[in-house]
Amino acid sequence: MSALITDLYQLTMLQGYFREGLTGEAVFEFTVSRLPENWGFLVSCGLDILLDYLEGLRFTPEEIGWLAKTGLFHDDFLEWLSEFRFEGDVYAIPEGEVFFPYEPVVQVVAPLPQAQLIETRLINIMHYSILVATKAVRCVLAARGKTLVEFGLRRAHGAEAGLWAARASYIAGFAGTSNVEAGYRYGIPIYGTMAHSYVMAHPDEASAFLGFARSQKTPVILLIDTYDPLRGAELVTELVPRLKGEGIDVRGVRLDSGDLAGLSVEVRRILDRAGLKELSIFASGDLDEYRIEELLSAGAPIDGFGVGTRLVTAADSPYLICGYKLYEYEGKPKRKASPGKSTWPGRKQVYRFHGGGHISRDLLALWEETVEGGKALLRPVMRRGKRTMPREEFSQIRARLERSLAGLSDDIKEIKPKGSYEVRISKGLRELSAELEGKWR
Amino acid sequence: MSALITDLYQLTMLQGYFREGLTGEAVFEFTVSRLPENWGFLVSCGLDILLDYLEGLRFTPEEIGWLAKTGLFHDDFLEWLSEFRFEGDVYAIPEGEVFFPYEPVVQVVAPLPQAQLIETRLINIMHYSILVATKAVRCVLAARGKTLVEFGLRRAHGAEAGLWAARASYIAGFAGTSNVEAGYRYGIPIYGTMAHSYVMAHPDEASAFLGFARSQKTPVILLIDTYDPLRGAELVTELVPRLKGEGIDVRGVRLDSGDLAGLSVEVRRILDRAGLKELSIFASGDLDEYRIEELLSAGAPIDGFGVGTRLVTAADSPYLICGYKLYEYEGKPKRKASPGKSTWPGRKQVYRFHGGGHISRDLLALWEETVEGGKALLRPVMRRGKRTMPREEFSQIRARLERSLAGLSDDIKEIKPKGSYEVRISKGLRELSAELEGKWR
Repeated sequence: MSALITDLYQLTMLQGYFREGLTGEAVFEFTVSRLPENWGFLVSCGLDILLDYLEGLRFTPEEIGWLAKTGLFHDDFLEWLSEFRFEGDVYAIPEGEVFFPYEPVVQVVAPLPQAQLIETRLINIMHYSILVATKAVRCVLAARGKTLVEFGLRRAHGAEAGLWAARASYIAGFAGTSNVEAGYRYGIPIYGTMAHSYVMAHPDEASAFLGFARSQKTPVILLIDTYDPLRGAELVTELVPRLKGEGIDVRGVRLDSGDLAGLSVEVRRILDRAGLKELSIFASGDLDEYRIEELLSAGAPIDGFGVGTRLVTAADSPYLICGYKLYEYEGKPKRKASPGKSTWPGRKQVYRFHGGGHISRDLLALWEETVEGGKALLRPVMRRGKRTMPREEFSQIRARLERSLAGLSDDIKEIKPKGSYEVRISKGLRELSAELEGKWR
Repeated sequence: MSALITDLYQLTMLQGYFREGLTGEAVFEFTVSRLPENWGFLVSCGLDILLDYLEGLRFTPEEIGWLAKTGLFHDDFLEWLSEFRFEGDVYAIPEGEVFFPYEPVVQVVAPLPQAQLIETRLINIMHYSILVATKAVRCVLAARGKTLVEFGLRRAHGAEAGLWAARASYIAGFAGTSNVEAGYRYGIPIYGTMAHSYVMAHPDEASAFLGFARSQKTPVILLIDTYDPLRGAELVTELVPRLKGEGIDVRGVRLDSGDLAGLSVEVRRILDRAGLKELSIFASGDLDEYRIEELLSAGAPIDGFGVGTRLVTAADSPYLICGYKLYEYEGKPKRKASPGKSTWPGRKQVYRFHGGGHISRDLLALWEETVEGGKALLRPVMRRGKRTMPREEFSQIRARLERSLAGLSDDIKEIKPKGSYEVRISKGLRELSAELEGKWR
């Protein structure tokens, strides 16, 4: 990915730091500062993508040549920029771990220009990954063990969003994705059924179902609602025995429109009456955690859900209030005091306390404070620009998420949580904050 | 871009079409079927990106090898897929033209497998481009001639969304973007100011402002709200004459938080009192068309707006109800009849009628119908897989949009439109629809 995926001001500020000789050690932290409505927690995601970006970050000669032509940059700065590498240290809450507002998910300790330049892409990677991972976990919790597949690529905002959404959903516990590139690049299991256009291109539904089933190497899911879902289901009961005779299995049927709760009951009845209890019912169409919970609460006999648009666009909260900010420069704590935007100053660590089989609370403290009994969540993951934490398997990340969720009390995990998780602020942090308050005002 | 940026079912359906020999000519159309709340129109955008994709579409040997390993595909199909090229015809409403629900924006006429395979990426490209272009035009209309700059990369859903958002906003009439890659790839003007971290890394605001202004080759915009915006503005009045003495100009100041309406009035007063009438006030922070209109209606003396997160995530409507559907196969009109999802059947053309200096109405008609007096909006842009319409300059597209908007009556262009635009359905289309109704039920 090009180093030019950044905001212009990062480059002009770098030119300032370069010419002013401001290259002292800076500490930046990425935090989310508010939970969207109904969200009880957040899930760390995107770190592996971020570390790849940091390791590969450099400007090509073509890019430097183009920057020169903009007329915005001095030659000595561009020469320095052509040698630019990220050589900082990174601490992070590992992917799959649950976290909360004000807690730094990523902490960068690096010479000021290096820590600054990466801001735009760091937020771009972490913000979207956390957004979709959390929403996907909400879908998994709502689905009560049913199979979920990510279907959102077409309405994702560009291909990279589609790819990252597939990754985040898989981390969240989805069975897989329809996105073939996500299979190729990440090894995520890929799934698919068939489209209405396939049915419509055939003279009738029967020839479409037979043609599709016979041409695939693996058992298919038949889409039954192109014309009339119940007629489609009846047709399936006629065709499945015929296909079985040819040695071809059908895995299930898919409903993509209409009253999914009502239709799934009727389709289940049609299939069961024909002795096709092993056929699954798969549903899709405008689904999210709310709709899934509604359908299952209504007793809809749906075995799997395709979740697309509303997940990958995070439709009910398409962005998080979040930022990557300077908290320390040359050992001095910093904090922005803009109206309504002030934050906890200084370099921080997050401690998590367990009690009664649950995660009981977190403590946000200064990096150098001594805290007894809590587990530090921010771990070193990169040292001098090189990964120190080995690349994690999805199975590790998924297991971490499961453990993390198991420790969280139910009232926080609900789709509309009744409780809220306690994040305390340490004495040291409160004192520093008060001290700076006086200083800047 | 990889051909694997698609849904798995496109490939399994292609395997079906291939083995069944279903390669007749198909007509697919991409349409938006509903306007988001408060939106009075849509703007065509994304075509150039789509045509690049179609011209370059092919599977690499590595991709074919990986597909073979999935175990889902027959060897003869994969051999055929390795030779796959898009060789169809494309008709489209050119970029920058205003259009409405039910009107096809892109129409693909190609052998069925070709028209099918491209579905996912076509929607992925067109959906997001139209979404952001339209929202950006709404911002331009709200801004009453003030300068707008796209600032959204960090919270865009991935880098591709960031790039496309910069392109769509520029087409919509924005002055430019903060996204450096968009400057490099598309030649879009790039803009930037400075960040709070820059100020915070300095011992005080004055040294930050002086350091920044002195290290740049072009006049800067100073961010004045890191600690106290009014103190920041006073400081600017002290520093500007000093910098002027050194031959350094300051272009303006930026406010990024707090009560922008009230602060901008006070800052303007401070600047004017110091004789700095030529300094502009630039505002950013959670802006969109509603907020811009509110600020300008309140008389805020803001000269330019940085519009980011809420634009690039299309926060009030992060997706459009849209689809790419089969409307004709081997000369026969088609239409899906799924509950709540039925559409106008057959291959269509859109005619636009002018009257009284305005665009008066559109007519959706069958492709082969004779329509008097209207201007056909769908134009041929690609023939047998090769562009027939030359790549357009941004200036052409922006001029088309201006003409298109000038023709639209005010009650449709408002941020909360009072009127709605009339799209009539032709007699031929209504008759065909009624005929198929009987046929499929």
